[in-house]
Amino acid sequence: MRWLTALILCFSVAVSADPLLVAKQRFTLDKFTTENGQTIAPVNIGWEAYGTLNSDKSNAILITHFFSGSSHAAGKYHTEDAAAGYWDAIIGPDKAIDTNKFYVISSDTLVNANVFDPKVITTGPATINPATSKPYGLAFPVVTIGDFVEVQKALLDSLGIDKLHAVIGPSMGSFQAIEWAVRYPDKVERLLPVIGSAYMDNYSAIKLQRWAYPILQDPAWQGGDYYDKGQPWQGLSTALAYITQDALHPDGFNPRYAAFSTDKALHQDIRALPQAWQQLLAQARQRAAKQDANHILYLVRASQLWRAGMGDNWQQALGRVKAKTLFLPASGDLLLPPALSQHSVKVMQAAGNSAQYGEIPGSFGHLDGVLGISTVASQISDFLK
Amino acid sequence: MRWLTALILCFSVAVSADPLLVAKQRFTLDKFTTENGQTIAPVNIGWEAYGTLNSDKSNAILITHFFSGSSHAAGKYHTEDAAAGYWDAIIGPDKAIDTNKFYVISSDTLVNANVFDPKVITTGPATINPATSKPYGLAFPVVTIGDFVEVQKALLDSLGIDKLHAVIGPSMGSFQAIEWAVRYPDKVERLLPVIGSAYMDNYSAIKLQRWAYPILQDPAWQGGDYYDKGQPWQGLSTALAYITQDALHPDGFNPRYAAFSTDKALHQDIRALPQAWQQLLAQARQRAAKQDANHILYLVRASQLWRAGMGDNWQQALGRVKAKTLFLPASGDLLLPPALSQHSVKVMQAAGNSAQYGEIPGSFGHLDGVLGISTVASQISDFLK
Repeated sequence: MRWLTALILCFSVAVSADPLLVAKQRFTLDKFTTENGQTIAPVNIGWEAYGTLNSDKSNAILITHFFSGSSHAAGKYHTEDAAAGYWDAIIGPDKAIDTNKFYVISSDTLVNANVFDPKVITTGPATINPATSKPYGLAFPVVTIGDFVEVQKALLDSLGIDKLHAVIGPSMGSFQAIEWAVRYPDKVERLLPVIGSAYMDNYSAIKLQRWAYPILQDPAWQGGDYYDKGQPWQGLSTALAYITQDALHPDGFNPRYAAFSTDKALHQDIRALPQAWQQLLAQARQRAAKQDANHILYLVRASQLWRAGMGDNWQQALGRVKAKTLFLPASGDLLLPPALSQHSVKVMQAAGNSAQYGEIPGSFGHLDGVLGISTVASQISDFLK
Repeated sequence: MRWLTALILCFSVAVSADPLLVAKQRFTLDKFTTENGQTIAPVNIGWEAYGTLNSDKSNAILITHFFSGSSHAAGKYHTEDAAAGYWDAIIGPDKAIDTNKFYVISSDTLVNANVFDPKVITTGPATINPATSKPYGLAFPVVTIGDFVEVQKALLDSLGIDKLHAVIGPSMGSFQAIEWAVRYPDKVERLLPVIGSAYMDNYSAIKLQRWAYPILQDPAWQGGDYYDKGQPWQGLSTALAYITQDALHPDGFNPRYAAFSTDKALHQDIRALPQAWQQLLAQARQRAAKQDANHILYLVRASQLWRAGMGDNWQQALGRVKAKTLFLPASGDLLLPPALSQHSVKVMQAAGNSAQYGEIPGSFGHLDGVLGISTVASQISDFLK
């Protein structure tokens, strides 16, 4: 989406003329057993880091990425890169998450959406299964937010990092951050779920099923076994178009698209597709080039199944969190509305955690958690002290 | 949807033990020319009325129906009917829209969704085209909210009704009500758009395109020419399921569906469909039995193209309204959010109309404009004085 890239660019240019240069690294786990008892061997994920790990390894902050995101949270790979990482406005030297003080680490999740981005390293249905020398396809096991966290834990263990000054993530990244604090209460000192929630409600989970639907209905999806025939582009692009809309508030969405009222063809022919729709789809098609349809289905499922602790009682699981906590939903978020963060905070407070709450202003809805993150930079910086 | 029916039933039972009995009537126009210059011959629509037209025909109130609705706004056809008309809570003897005083008339729109409901009379793509003796299919012209209003106008002309005490309608009915007041400012004394808007924004119009998508992608849709082969049930049911969700607020939606977290199959098999999703689809499939897929596409288009006056400048068109006006959006509406009503009111006020504004409380979102209408009964009754 050109305008999003342009916006991200504006933010990063405004904040830093001399970008942090970063390199992608690879972490390999020879064997990983999922929460549901399946084995994946090997698991590879990409990661990057900003800042320097101190001698007692006590200054690490983990950043966990959103649904369509990757480990590229800050900096650029090359000075001439068009855009920096998605949270470059708050991660870097002297920024809210100050890389002069902190060692900030960010990793790609399992089943990352952007599996065909050369800068993303992930393991999922599009990965070659060593047992068959073909992509896993739907033979890849269902993975959960808990699995994402366990792979990150193995990465941090490999680096000898035993404690995290903070875990911070937007959207699906907030799910991972919360799960870290629930599973490893003694390892997580601060928890900052941005545009997030400690659980997925039915309404949002069904919305996500609506993202999956165009892929599942595309004849080119072939029951998930399309790797030698080409992707279900129509279904994938449509899914990505829906994600774009659902992540935006009407105030941010409306001005970007052609008005229906002046779209003359719509009056004359019921078969005519709205210009605004075609525009949205064309943007989505560009993004689809780096993505895999099955990976979207797995991310949908992982998100649908999310609740803190991954068990029968997310409220009780939240009670295990020892971290100092700050929830930061976006005021205009229609995808994971502030009510979900508010409910999460109340449950934590009832369990004795003095969780704090703030809102990110803006007109982009859910996306304000990425595009508008600089508006809460000082809150984040204070929270990390 | 059983629980909705049950809810509607609760309301009507609470309000009246002795229901108004009503009969459907038919209005025929031998020939109708659409806004876009196409001819439909003949046009038939159903209508019903509650109360008695006074001798100078000055006590008529027109009710215009919502997207999935029909002319059955109040009363029952038989005392043993399970549910009364959708606004029975406010239409009837001694109710907010008092049929002891007013002659309340309600008509089916063109391309009504429920074309296979024996109590609905409409003309649309599923209607037999006398020229071919086959259903029109997509040869049926694109119709607009303006066309809906012109057919209603012909009906009222046929009854000798020259002035309306009020035009009142929810959702898509609000579009028709506003268009009445714009086109015939001297005929409409009061305008009451409920859960409505004087225009469709891009965000909502794209949402509606997402209702159309499952129909358009269903192979059984056959380019709209399916009448001798059977409906695209999968696409139609999915569209109706989306409509149900989009018309509800999470607070009203969540408790009605099975929790994802305890849906064990979802953890084990990526192919498993969520129980909540299946439940939503099963309810939609029941409603689909009375509906036609092409009619949904035409209603989507009519709604997408909506703006007051149907021209290039809806703000200017609103300036023509002479009616005393009250907008009543629902506080939790996510389909046509209060912001749309607020914007409409501001534009009218800027043009010198002292339009009033109120909100319908509740947890059902858009549907509070139907299910929760009794909460604003006294406001409506005062407004009609």
